[in-house]
Amino acid sequence: MLIVMTVGATPRQVEGVMEHVKALGLKPHPIPGAQRVAIGITGNQGAVEPALFENLPGVLEVIPVSHPYKLVSREVKPENSVVVVGGVPIGGDNFAVIAGPCSVETAEQTLTIARAVRSAGAQILRGGAFKPRTSPYAFQGLGEPGLAILRDVGLEVRMPVVSEALDERSLDLVIEYCDMIQIGARNMQNYSLLRTAGRLQKPVLLKRGMAATVEELLMAAEYVLAEGNYQVVLCERGIRTFADHTRNTLDLAAVVAVQRLSHLPIIVDPSHATGKRHKVVPLARAGAAVGADGLMVEVHHEPAQALSDASQAILPSELAQLMQQLPALLPLTGRHMAQPLRLSA
Amino acid sequence: MLIVMTVGATPRQVEGVMEHVKALGLKPHPIPGAQRVAIGITGNQGAVEPALFENLPGVLEVIPVSHPYKLVSREVKPENSVVVVGGVPIGGDNFAVIAGPCSVETAEQTLTIARAVRSAGAQILRGGAFKPRTSPYAFQGLGEPGLAILRDVGLEVRMPVVSEALDERSLDLVIEYCDMIQIGARNMQNYSLLRTAGRLQKPVLLKRGMAATVEELLMAAEYVLAEGNYQVVLCERGIRTFADHTRNTLDLAAVVAVQRLSHLPIIVDPSHATGKRHKVVPLARAGAAVGADGLMVEVHHEPAQALSDASQAILPSELAQLMQQLPALLPLTGRHMAQPLRLSA
Amino acid sequence: MLIVMTVGATPRQVEGVMEHVKALGLKPHPIPGAQRVAIGITGNQGAVEPALFENLPGVLEVIPVSHPYKLVSREVKPENSVVVVGGVPIGGDNFAVIAGPCSVETAEQTLTIARAVRSAGAQILRGGAFKPRTSPYAFQGLGEPGLAILRDVGLEVRMPVVSEALDERSLDLVIEYCDMIQIGARNMQNYSLLRTAGRLQKPVLLKRGMAATVEELLMAAEYVLAEGNYQVVLCERGIRTFADHTRNTLDLAAVVAVQRLSHLPIIVDPSHATGKRHKVVPLARAGAAVGADGLMVEVHHEPAQALSDASQAILPSELAQLMQQLPALLPLTGRHMAQPLRLSA
Amino acid sequence: MLIVMTVGATPRQVEGVMEHVKALGLKPHPIPGAQRVAIGITGNQGAVEPALFENLPGVLEVIPVSHPYKLVSREVKPENSVVVVGGVPIGGDNFAVIAGPCSVETAEQTLTIARAVRSAGAQILRGGAFKPRTSPYAFQGLGEPGLAILRDVGLEVRMPVVSEALDERSLDLVIEYCDMIQIGARNMQNYSLLRTAGRLQKPVLLKRGMAATVEELLMAAEYVLAEGNYQVVLCERGIRTFADHTRNTLDLAAVVAVQRLSHLPIIVDPSHATGKRHKVVPLARAGAAVGADGLMVEVHHEPAQALSDASQAILPSELAQLMQQLPALLPLTGRHMAQPLRLSA
Repeated sequence: MLIVMTVGATPRQVEGVMEHVKALGLKPHPIPGAQRVAIGITGNQGAVEPALFENLPGVLEVIPVSHPYKLVSREVKPENSVVVVGGVPIGGDNFAVIAGPCSVETAEQTLTIARAVRSAGAQILRGGAFKPRTSPYAFQGLGEPGLAILRDVGLEVRMPVVSEALDERSLDLVIEYCDMIQIGARNMQNYSLLRTAGRLQKPVLLKRGMAATVEELLMAAEYVLAEGNYQVVLCERGIRTFADHTRNTLDLAAVVAVQRLSHLPIIVDPSHATGKRHKVVPLARAGAAVGADGLMVEVHHEPAQALSDASQAILPSELAQLMQQLPALLPLTGRHMAQPLRLSA
Repeated sequence: MLIVMTVGATPRQVEGVMEHVKALGLKPHPIPGAQRVAIGITGNQGAVEPALFENLPGVLEVIPVSHPYKLVSREVKPENSVVVVGGVPIGGDNFAVIAGPCSVETAEQTLTIARAVRSAGAQILRGGAFKPRTSPYAFQGLGEPGLAILRDVGLEVRMPVVSEALDERSLDLVIEYCDMIQIGARNMQNYSLLRTAGRLQKPVLLKRGMAATVEELLMAAEYVLAEGNYQVVLCERGIRTFADHTRNTLDLAAVVAVQRLSHLPIIVDPSHATGKRHKVVPLARAGAAVGADGLMVEVHHEPAQALSDASQAILPSELAQLMQQLPALLPLTGRHMAQPLRLSA
Repeated sequence: MLIVMTVGATPRQVEGVMEHVKALGLKPHPIPGAQRVAIGITGNQGAVEPALFENLPGVLEVIPVSHPYKLVSREVKPENSVVVVGGVPIGGDNFAVIAGPCSVETAEQTLTIARAVRSAGAQILRGGAFKPRTSPYAFQGLGEPGLAILRDVGLEVRMPVVSEALDERSLDLVIEYCDMIQIGARNMQNYSLLRTAGRLQKPVLLKRGMAATVEELLMAAEYVLAEGNYQVVLCERGIRTFADHTRNTLDLAAVVAVQRLSHLPIIVDPSHATGKRHKVVPLARAGAAVGADGLMVEVHHEPAQALSDASQAILPSELAQLMQQLPALLPLTGRHMAQPLRLSA
Repeated sequence: MLIVMTVGATPRQVEGVMEHVKALGLKPHPIPGAQRVAIGITGNQGAVEPALFENLPGVLEVIPVSHPYKLVSREVKPENSVVVVGGVPIGGDNFAVIAGPCSVETAEQTLTIARAVRSAGAQILRGGAFKPRTSPYAFQGLGEPGLAILRDVGLEVRMPVVSEALDERSLDLVIEYCDMIQIGARNMQNYSLLRTAGRLQKPVLLKRGMAATVEELLMAAEYVLAEGNYQVVLCERGIRTFADHTRNTLDLAAVVAVQRLSHLPIIVDPSHATGKRHKVVPLARAGAAVGADGLMVEVHHEPAQALSDASQAILPSELAQLMQQLPALLPLTGRHMAQPLRLSA
């Protein structure tokens, strides 16, 4: 914490601030400058509330210095974390592709798509059973029957599965049927849900909120880790900006920023980021090129018939094309396609 | 829904789109133009998915026309709704001020502040017992004991009380102790919570999400109304932008936009919008001047000691000053200070 | 400037940074903390480039402390500046209303509107002759003949006039015909234009850029003051955000922020901020209530016939209504309607 | 143009709007729907002002349909344009890298960097002589002597050169010394400068403004083409958002959007987009992977000594590494490194 005094602050005002710092059991470090004085503060355990100082006489502004996250921080754990989802490692040098329909609609639709994404080379199957929809009148997902379909199809095609939980009730179901729990962008700061997910033993896929900074994303993950669950994969899926040519603005620099600050893996979702089919493959390539640890892509064999997010699903053939391009890209960032771990007999 | 064809679309492509529209049981209306053809669609019950058409040959873009909200819409209910909170009417020509501490800390602190805000003229008391904090290590509120304090203090000073619910568990408690349930910005799209609140008989204060459009705010309210609870008050509390001189950017035009589209009351929260004490009173005045139906303001008698959001709480004396200025402002927008309703003996 | 070291920085790395600081002729102030060391820097004349330090071994981040603006700063000149435009004072406790058509179209149209805005009580007449249009095919303004009309009408109705300059050529004309030079939002960082305007003796109305922070707005004004012209009035006119219910998002907190940091007057333009007629008067009231030093409003007697920005012009009767509401608002912020100064005979 | 009537609009109101359309010489096409009527309009030459209709009785909203750009549009010219800069083709399947210092500082510094970037494989040399700086007190560039150094160094290392023009005066100089004129983000809507550049025979590098939509970027280019200069290369360099981990948010989807709408080449500038050295190479790779037609990168052999933008310059060795990675990336988007054209003797 650094307190910056105004140019005209009197010695008495500086003294007053220093007394106030001491009274709180902290240690002030005055830094006299040519134009003004600044006062560094040490001795605090956690963050100090800037408001404790910013309305004192002579204070111009208060600048926090320490970062508030701990367990997610690379300062605490320098090496990359690897999260294993149903035998598929994500992170480190393992690049994983999660693919599947936006929503589980029928067993047949899900199986058709699952076979296609598996044959294209994706390692993990996605499919929504609980859908957060802007309108209460839109299709809200099949619920538990959808999860059962997803699990059965996953077993059939031998892929681990991931699905979104919206609340504690759906979370109970998702952990029963799935290998990974997705917490969506709208729920990134649903702290009850994060805490509950933190008490489970299942990997969590945590998507960045549309208006969340990188620091807030890391703090949301910190909620999960603080409860004891260290298996968190982050996901950049676009932020809300004025730009109107895509649904959100994919912020690929966030991947680099997260990897610098945290040891957690981070993947990229170009489907929700763009909301437009023809932009998905180019931005998936860009996500791999920037150094992400994986991708999450929506695929549908008949997009025009999809019950949700039809505009952004790519065709199985487009996924296959993308998967064929990845081997040229991954070595540039020191990664290779994740291989399912063989469990000993 | 309007389908716009490319300049070079062939008659056959236009015909193909029209066939596709008919095959879906809808009615196409071709509009030949000088440069291109557009096709209007009618006969749909709800929204039609643009993806059904936008990848057909010759299609340039698909433009949705109808609005998706219904119950919240002024088209459905032209006259303003009035929501009554513990006897205090909000909306119509009634202007209500909700004031109190960010967090309930102690019975003494809450009572001191409650007396001050009541004597200043505020009609409803606020106080958080469940706090959504970015950091898992920050003060998270007193929980149920905090609600009990708030209720007791409310009875003592004869003010209805409002507090935030974060999840279904805290919602159960809030409805037990409070006259109004607050659903915060981070939970604006927590649809489970909205639905549950929609099944209650208590008024709901629904805050706009930091990245929510006006349409999304109205759709979130639609979730509550669709379950049968029509007592919803909206709250503009700032959106996230690049501007860095305030915590969020207060979007006062949203008040006018909401009032044009919807019959629901909308109030303004200048405390969370700015995050800075010296900006609260000027923006509270601006909120009243733009035509809001009320204000929500954080007040603390010793801001530097507050356990949360200390930087934005105003002093009781500042609230008193604001309340003295409101009578000059309210007539400009056809409003007057809300008077608690007298219940017959 | 404050250099924050990583938690694991070695004493040798700390020493290395301190040597580097000294080698640049500056003075390092180490601040040892519980977890990490920070190093304050003093002795610099102007800003120090963070890059000089941020890639040194052991450095986590570099935090600038001093503000870069000088002449516009309230630290340099604590009392409010008053800018006089053709005898009309803006700033201090003087509130001025600038009104008129978006574009000068004909002498008749301009005179009709000028008479209406004068009779409503506006003090300064606006009218564009050089229009910055997104499309090269849109109406670009009448040019010099438009300025001549504006001047003549101004003389006729005894109002000072303001018009926008787009480049040096139009600036030469605007200073010839007008009492105040407007520099528009798109040109806020056109530094050549700012410098040229700084060498003139005419008041400048400088509009905030759509993506400009408050600090950048103040720095743009600093360009004008640095050349010797201290007669600058700032204008908040909305910033670009994701919100889609208005053309831009009016950021009224910027008015308070500017007034805290700078002595320059600042007015509010609700017409460009909203782009919608029915939102102009409510936001004009809000601008007055927040404490702005004036308003700029587009008025047209036949909006549907206007050659530019027709959607946002209010009717003369709407302006009259607004002007009648201002006397109730201005005392709340210690202001009164500006009165033209009487020049001695 | 499509006019949408309110649900309750009367037949008479619909008739009134249609009469109004006809009175303007246009043709109305009523589209009766289940809930409401919409009216399509044809017969217009250019854009029709929505305000002509949106305040008529019974009108809910007015939706523009046609795009305003023409010469830049792929509808007008379906095949990709190739812009040749001093013999180096950009666009089509030619991928070009522009590299060099932010500012020309000395002949020695420029030559050192130029040799490094040429040996790394970059095809075009950049270097600023006129710098748009937020502060009037910051280094503003060497001016004409800087351009002379850049030209001489370009001749020495046999690379075409590009430099930024800020106004007409500097434009006159830039065209004298350089092979390509850069118009920066702050000047993207400086229409005088765009028009002047449009009358020249030199290629123009037009950078997207920080708050510009893709449509506005294309309209800015339209200003140049409309004056007769078709040699325009666009540049995505990041937009302003709330995200604070980079200086701007690089919007790579804009590359795909531009390529769908326009035939003009578009390159990516990861240096200004991120403002941080360690993010430049990852985002440069991402730019190539998304399908851009080239890159612009700032390089300095001694970043800590650079007079401007020191934080974002990469080292020559980092550029060399990036250039070695491009051959693996370019075939994925059907591109190859641009080869200077051989002129016949």
